[in-house]
Amino acid sequence: MLQQPVNKTELGELGEFGLIKQLTKDFSLKNKSSVLGVGDDAAILNYDNADVLISTDMLLEGVHFDLTYTPLKHLGYKAAVVNFSDIYAMNGKPEQITVGLACSNRFPVEALEQLYEGIGLACVNYGVDLVGGDTTSSKAGLIVSITVTGSVEKGKAVTRNGASKGDLLVVSGDLGGAYMGLQLLEREKSVFMEAPGTQPDLEGYDYILERQLKPEARGDIIELLKEKEIQPTSMIDISDGLGSEIFHLCEQSLVGCKLYEEKIPIDPTTYNLAREFGIDPTVCALSGGEDYELLFSISQADYDKIKGSMLVTVIGHFTDPAEGKLLIDKSGGVHDLKAQGWKSF
Amino acid sequence: MLQQPVNKTELGELGEFGLIKQLTKDFSLKNKSSVLGVGDDAAILNYDNADVLISTDMLLEGVHFDLTYTPLKHLGYKAAVVNFSDIYAMNGKPEQITVGLACSNRFPVEALEQLYEGIGLACVNYGVDLVGGDTTSSKAGLIVSITVTGSVEKGKAVTRNGASKGDLLVVSGDLGGAYMGLQLLEREKSVFMEAPGTQPDLEGYDYILERQLKPEARGDIIELLKEKEIQPTSMIDISDGLGSEIFHLCEQSLVGCKLYEEKIPIDPTTYNLAREFGIDPTVCALSGGEDYELLFSISQADYDKIKGSMLVTVIGHFTDPAEGKLLIDKSGGVHDLKAQGWKSF
Repeated sequence: MLQQPVNKTELGELGEFGLIKQLTKDFSLKNKSSVLGVGDDAAILNYDNADVLISTDMLLEGVHFDLTYTPLKHLGYKAAVVNFSDIYAMNGKPEQITVGLACSNRFPVEALEQLYEGIGLACVNYGVDLVGGDTTSSKAGLIVSITVTGSVEKGKAVTRNGASKGDLLVVSGDLGGAYMGLQLLEREKSVFMEAPGTQPDLEGYDYILERQLKPEARGDIIELLKEKEIQPTSMIDISDGLGSEIFHLCEQSLVGCKLYEEKIPIDPTTYNLAREFGIDPTVCALSGGEDYELLFSISQADYDKIKGSMLVTVIGHFTDPAEGKLLIDKSGGVHDLKAQGWKSF
Repeated sequence: MLQQPVNKTELGELGEFGLIKQLTKDFSLKNKSSVLGVGDDAAILNYDNADVLISTDMLLEGVHFDLTYTPLKHLGYKAAVVNFSDIYAMNGKPEQITVGLACSNRFPVEALEQLYEGIGLACVNYGVDLVGGDTTSSKAGLIVSITVTGSVEKGKAVTRNGASKGDLLVVSGDLGGAYMGLQLLEREKSVFMEAPGTQPDLEGYDYILERQLKPEARGDIIELLKEKEIQPTSMIDISDGLGSEIFHLCEQSLVGCKLYEEKIPIDPTTYNLAREFGIDPTVCALSGGEDYELLFSISQADYDKIKGSMLVTVIGHFTDPAEGKLLIDKSGGVHDLKAQGWKSF
């Protein structure tokens, strides 16, 4: 469905070092913490007076993305942004990334340039510097491995294990959209495979397609929390689905929870398309994943500070662990919450 | 040739989080800079009063290693150590790693445990903490992506671009062994493929096999330099071969060089096996790669401090860039040095 770049420069023409140089030539360092970037055995960073956060993620063709409908620029953007999301989920600010790239010869240099264009755009939008990388050949498609470093004020990192009974469970944005975007793309791919030449029917679905193909990380929520002087008691980003992430917070904080189905924020486009596909919209939110929204807990004393905010929604609260992890449905029925996260095995 | 582990626990039985927990359960944090390790969205590090070094490396089955003759424990050890080497090559001390792992279902959990055993042994031997990771499925064999962070005293990092005309070119250990180790393993693999059941003939080659399968990074050289109060003017580790690394130093420092063939340290085992294979031992050293020795330059004023050391050898000196990059052979003949590093494309 997607067109390959028109110009094709063979990877072998540049060699490994030439390729890295070519791909990173338009990147410049912007953060004070980035002392030396690409081009030596290691990059040099300086994080005086702050704690350093570090996280790593690997994306594989055929497992995490399908190049039939994922433009390489979007892939690069998303690969970077999902890493930034992990730093925000610790209450930090992403500042550097290193990019490991493995690809086969079927990719011309121009394709990798598109990928790096996406990574570069994400870096510009989020104020992050590319400081290092490794490029190698692969016999099996494209693999992108990104490591991100970021800063957080000393002692202010928010982990998954600080929630207490009574704390409110809060989520940013809305959920399930990325999952429905994927369902839509998969459906149009099947149609195309059966009748090549047909144009995909994606009109009116911009929002959920963007949720899947070009997600954003919620740095704005971290700023909001700082501005409102709220230190969350626990936090995680939603990569595997709301259900799975709530399980992580409960298990690491040793608490139970009550989640109210009617409070879960779902966009109308997501809701309607889920219905059309015969999927329960709540299940999309609980198990869909890849929303990259922030899920966090705050003490009840902080409730007034976020009351009425359009950016976040209180969806439940933590309880005594003996009460279990419960989902209260729209008619008041009580169910055991299941951790149906996305499983990669 | 290698036996698979006897116990086979399917990866799917544990799930992604269970697997990470299982693989990292025996790792503990030892460094003051490691504040929080595996188990949250990101690890937390603190590098007050020091610069942070960061480097990343990706190893792919069928490209960088062959599991026919690479024990998984050795692979884990090597994957970690080659990353440590990058930090030493900046004059730093490795302190943390994150491990990205992609593998197919053909690997039982026990196989990954062996890989992590090797990573763990390297961490213990070098005083490094495992602080994070990502584990996912792969349709194409095993992929190990490691990112290492380390510390260096502020302003003491040694880059590739600080060498001046007249500086002495120094290398640690001996060269070409890892390459001849690989040649030997490849030969025995061919023999085995043609006549399965034959036992490989590897006796007497422990040294070069270890150079290939279980290399060490030269932290002892960094300590030696510190003890002797030598601040190298430039430094790089030998991953692609002496020729290629000298090119990097010359090009980034804007200098030429004279390298003396007779000074290049080559172990007798390497030398003799190269002769047996009909390969020029000097070519092994120049182009073989994977020795993970340190190549650095020092000002002439520091020469007396290392004179007579068994750990390092002066192999040449830097010159005016107009003089070019020259190899002086054993009979005094002058040749243009070629950057015949290992090319991954």
